[in-house]
Amino acid sequence: METLDVALGDRSYPILVGAGLLARAGELLADHVGRDVVLVTNTTVGPLYLQALRDALGERRYAVHELPDGEQHKSLTQVAAIVDTAVRAGFSRDATFVALGGGVVGDMAGFAAAIFMRGVGCVQIPTTLLAQVDSSVGGKTGVNHELGKNLIGAFHQPRCVLIDTQTLDTLPEREFSAGMAEVIKHGAIVDIDYFERLERDIDALMRRDPKALTEAIVHSCRIKAAVVAEDERERGRRAILNFGHTFGHAIEACTAYSRWLHGEAVGLGMQMAAEMSGLDAMSVDRLRNLLTRAGLPSRPGALSAKDMLDAMGHDKKVSAGAITLILLDALGDARVVRDFDQERLHKVLNDWAS
Amino acid sequence: METLDVALGDRSYPILVGAGLLARAGELLADHVGRDVVLVTNTTVGPLYLQALRDALGERRYAVHELPDGEQHKSLTQVAAIVDTAVRAGFSRDATFVALGGGVVGDMAGFAAAIFMRGVGCVQIPTTLLAQVDSSVGGKTGVNHELGKNLIGAFHQPRCVLIDTQTLDTLPEREFSAGMAEVIKHGAIVDIDYFERLERDIDALMRRDPKALTEAIVHSCRIKAAVVAEDERERGRRAILNFGHTFGHAIEACTAYSRWLHGEAVGLGMQMAAEMSGLDAMSVDRLRNLLTRAGLPSRPGALSAKDMLDAMGHDKKVSAGAITLILLDALGDARVVRDFDQERLHKVLNDWAS
Repeated sequence: METLDVALGDRSYPILVGAGLLARAGELLADHVGRDVVLVTNTTVGPLYLQALRDALGERRYAVHELPDGEQHKSLTQVAAIVDTAVRAGFSRDATFVALGGGVVGDMAGFAAAIFMRGVGCVQIPTTLLAQVDSSVGGKTGVNHELGKNLIGAFHQPRCVLIDTQTLDTLPEREFSAGMAEVIKHGAIVDIDYFERLERDIDALMRRDPKALTEAIVHSCRIKAAVVAEDERERGRRAILNFGHTFGHAIEACTAYSRWLHGEAVGLGMQMAAEMSGLDAMSVDRLRNLLTRAGLPSRPGALSAKDMLDAMGHDKKVSAGAITLILLDALGDARVVRDFDQERLHKVLNDWAS
Repeated sequence: METLDVALGDRSYPILVGAGLLARAGELLADHVGRDVVLVTNTTVGPLYLQALRDALGERRYAVHELPDGEQHKSLTQVAAIVDTAVRAGFSRDATFVALGGGVVGDMAGFAAAIFMRGVGCVQIPTTLLAQVDSSVGGKTGVNHELGKNLIGAFHQPRCVLIDTQTLDTLPEREFSAGMAEVIKHGAIVDIDYFERLERDIDALMRRDPKALTEAIVHSCRIKAAVVAEDERERGRRAILNFGHTFGHAIEACTAYSRWLHGEAVGLGMQMAAEMSGLDAMSVDRLRNLLTRAGLPSRPGALSAKDMLDAMGHDKKVSAGAITLILLDALGDARVVRDFDQERLHKVLNDWAS
């Protein structure tokens, strides 16, 4: 087992990563979970791992809340239902919310923990690669609004994140690849050594080798933690984590959030952002090759350049009307750019639209 | 105008108190309110002061949300509607929520600001005495659940609190007295000099003399700020602010939250807590006299001691099953007590029930 501490003053917490940790949850979470536990999961993950988690946590008072599976259920209504479960169980300020599932479950359970009794403890047990390397660090919780994603939420740091790499064994291929997009992103934005290690280990990772997975998850979380520690409330530097996201969100919006998984769209967005960056052709190729070997798409399908541009203007990361892009000076070296070449943007969008 | 700074590190903010400040809101809030403003008020206060506030704030993009008046509307559904107003206006992270009204408006607008885009700025303009001396400090926001009050919410400090004592001119007599209960509480728990000043100034205050009001509001906010600064997340010492509240909440619960205003119930609860404290008869009399001169009730009406005891066990401040009481060692000197004389509690409840 590897342990990584996310340093955020009195909101610091450990991330535990390894194979078979779910069975040791009772011992590993002893300091973080009290007598009263709200177990939040969904209809897909619950049947796979909920009983094992309860067995490991042992004798406590449980209130189980099983959410419907899918991003379309990530709503304030569903969060209110989770809070309702906690209230009806008679739980109070010393209750702990435990999220068992992917990013949607973690976002909703974390937000419910943030607003129940004005904030109680939360433990995250992410079971998708994307959630493990992305939601584990940053403390973002929340839900969608019918007019936009993640418009409602809170920053609420967990007490502990427990990552059992074995839970990835049941993750569908496409979702695993979508998580790999974020892993590759971490190398691309700040760490060329890590990027090269991923180029070397990509086959082992795609076989879901436990050792390679543990290493990559820990390293990705460490990178994200370092960026977030500099900028917990997302006012500046943290934006480099959005590499590929402005283009990616636009692709998702232009395909009605149905054709591509979020990670797949981000993978495509990273390739667009790399071209927009004016990187040398070899670097662009290396990024594309690694993404392809990770099972990610290299073409977005039919898109209109104008629709893409409109969608980019509506991205949540847009501040006061200006589009912000994360561009690479080189592989492993990203920066936030507000003043970029508009013509180049049009050219990239046209290239990718055709 | 008096200014008080609430010192909470990077969440510090000023409280401005004086007569006629609403008309100067544009100048006084220049650093705290941007171009996009969500004005939240209710159907009672809106018609009285909303136009004056807009005139003072001048040219900006406004989204106005008028809530129905009353505690029964303090729900997550209504907060979702406020957020909806902000989203539909196209507002983003740089929007500011401005709450114009009593504690219910402030709690809901503050909570909406806490969860819109994971937290944006909020300015509180409380128009009741209770909200001015109570909600101005502490950062508590939230809503009720059908099974209990304030079970859903967040800690979210405002950017600024603007208190115009002239808005009290339109406050009904009973509500003014209910606010005075909190003012008197501040003296009773930590400041005998303040308590004596209130004994001297009570007639001027009840006439709503602007100078006396400004002094009392500033001093009450200062006391609350000092207590909160020691314990922002309410884990220990801050509990002394609940003096009178455990009994008061029980009175409210036993009278179906309809007979007494919250402040009136707290006023009664303080008298019960003073007796429970075993204070000398003269101190108990001084407290009762001051509350009576402030227009607060001295008898709760018919109550059952057993119902009161049951209700106290369900108070939100109960941690892990034990009742916590705030008792006075003397006027101006409160402490948190978990290990108290059960027989004495039964006796006090029986005395007040008869």
